[in-house]
Amino acid sequence: MVSIKDVAKLAGVSVTTVSRVMNNRGYIGNKTRQKVERAMKELDYHPNQIARALLSNQSYILGVIVPDLGHPLFSELINWIEHYAGERNYKLLVCNSLQEAEKEINYISMLRQNRVDGIIMCSHTLEVEAYNNTNMPIVSFDRILSSSIPYVASDNYRGGEIATNHLIAKGCQKILHISGPLNVELLANRRSDAFQLTCIKSGVDWKIVEGAHVKATFEDNWAFIEKEIAPYLNDYDGIFCSNDIMAYTLYVYAGAKGFQVPDQLKIVGYDYHSFTRMLKNPALTTVKQPLDRIGKALCASLIEQIENGGSNTADHTVYDVELIQGQTT
Amino acid sequence: MVSIKDVAKLAGVSVTTVSRVMNNRGYIGNKTRQKVERAMKELDYHPNQIARALLSNQSYILGVIVPDLGHPLFSELINWIEHYAGERNYKLLVCNSLQEAEKEINYISMLRQNRVDGIIMCSHTLEVEAYNNTNMPIVSFDRILSSSIPYVASDNYRGGEIATNHLIAKGCQKILHISGPLNVELLANRRSDAFQLTCIKSGVDWKIVEGAHVKATFEDNWAFIEKEIAPYLNDYDGIFCSNDIMAYTLYVYAGAKGFQVPDQLKIVGYDYHSFTRMLKNPALTTVKQPLDRIGKALCASLIEQIENGGSNTADHTVYDVELIQGQTT
Repeated sequence: MVSIKDVAKLAGVSVTTVSRVMNNRGYIGNKTRQKVERAMKELDYHPNQIARALLSNQSYILGVIVPDLGHPLFSELINWIEHYAGERNYKLLVCNSLQEAEKEINYISMLRQNRVDGIIMCSHTLEVEAYNNTNMPIVSFDRILSSSIPYVASDNYRGGEIATNHLIAKGCQKILHISGPLNVELLANRRSDAFQLTCIKSGVDWKIVEGAHVKATFEDNWAFIEKEIAPYLNDYDGIFCSNDIMAYTLYVYAGAKGFQVPDQLKIVGYDYHSFTRMLKNPALTTVKQPLDRIGKALCASLIEQIENGGSNTADHTVYDVELIQGQTT
Repeated sequence: MVSIKDVAKLAGVSVTTVSRVMNNRGYIGNKTRQKVERAMKELDYHPNQIARALLSNQSYILGVIVPDLGHPLFSELINWIEHYAGERNYKLLVCNSLQEAEKEINYISMLRQNRVDGIIMCSHTLEVEAYNNTNMPIVSFDRILSSSIPYVASDNYRGGEIATNHLIAKGCQKILHISGPLNVELLANRRSDAFQLTCIKSGVDWKIVEGAHVKATFEDNWAFIEKEIAPYLNDYDGIFCSNDIMAYTLYVYAGAKGFQVPDQLKIVGYDYHSFTRMLKNPALTTVKQPLDRIGKALCASLIEQIENGGSNTADHTVYDVELIQGQTT
């Protein structure tokens, strides 16, 4: 089997230099890099990363746990995480919790067994303790796990404020909010807090209906709206939905029941992921989360912990959000 | 550190039994499984999978290369692959080629270095040789790599036939087809072959315009349609698009230019992924690929090669497709 020494010999450089090229670490001139890469190619050299991981205690693999890989929010986020992890020479093991706590516990155990260097946690299922006990570098998306575990999120409070103020500015008098599941400590719930306080401050009538915990398919949302929201449609003239798929379903539902959007009923969503960007009939009015920057920050925060250790009080990262004016308000 | 022997002792079973529970292999009674799992939990035992991989030469990790994780077709397919791989105790390393050949070559090398047990190849970029030379278990989606590498696909030819016959049955006289990129040997190109032959047999006028190679965003498709398709819109009364995002963009474009769909222009797409299923204004007429069964077959075929070796002539798997009647025809 070809070894790193053979590569160094053919390239006329030291083993350390070959190692630095392979790990993409430290300064290496372009010419040297090319020599090493040519030698690796010529010898068909594939370093055994598993053996290296065992020796170095680093696998350069990040575990990512998401609730649903097929959901446009998470597929887009993973796309960006993969991109930025790749720039730092890390690979992704992806895990789909499907919101099942048992599956998620098994995944954490599996990720530890596979010696991933750290975990990016985008799921909402488990109790916080399960994560606090892992003793691994962790970063979470949109959720506070503990004061020593950094999170990355969009400014959910501001997002709720912007959406609510927009409905009020458009003349809505009675506003309803469809939240996410409120029994889990998600930062996304701050959208609902902001909604409530903004309505109180402005003196408009308001109501919060807790969204269902189901996977967000159109059909699930439709059934939820028919049962929980339909009774309020005659009374309320503005609805702020905590995600775009709910907002779109509501738009279609309202149309089917003869409500004119936006004349009789104004709708604001949240996310602006690939599905929403593609949607033109109607273009949704919504709040944009910067998924590109969130993915980048998740990688940067986790790799910082892996390579330089964590600290007792974590640096959280919060990104501003922006209102996208569409045709539903 | 806790060892497998400690677990066996506490559970009162043999080391072999513990190993079988961990690997989910061979018959294990429910009671025994529970005893072992309880012992593992009590001792907080996490087997070092990396060390085991090095010893056993199996990592239980599958590499998956897709062109774009953010695309609804591939995010849904990965969702299913993850599901079925998990049932067999395999994990996924995902790689996003973004249609760049160099990135894809690096990924294959990286996957070999990490000793993945095999590769599921859903990308379209590389020359076939790069895959034939890997000496690893491989299965491809929608592409013939060689006679010894199995592929899984929907029956693309039949899909093209169904779509074209549907347009003809709806009264179209001049039909245009927007294909995928034709310079890569994709099975998806059989949709275009079927389109052509079906039109010839039926004596209707036809034309094929090769689709752009770009990432399939709405904006890219719009620019493509404006440049390549707009000149034909007055002349043709039916268009078969090789994917749903193109079909949706075309629907919006045609509407903006004053064409009535489906009265003046009928549109059929292909895929029926999560984006299309959610779309209600309009519901697209399209051809459904069974992504659930395709994901299952990709896993089954690859794991069969990993666990029982490949053969000289591969068993390919082709699934039937079905027309979904929407509002665009």
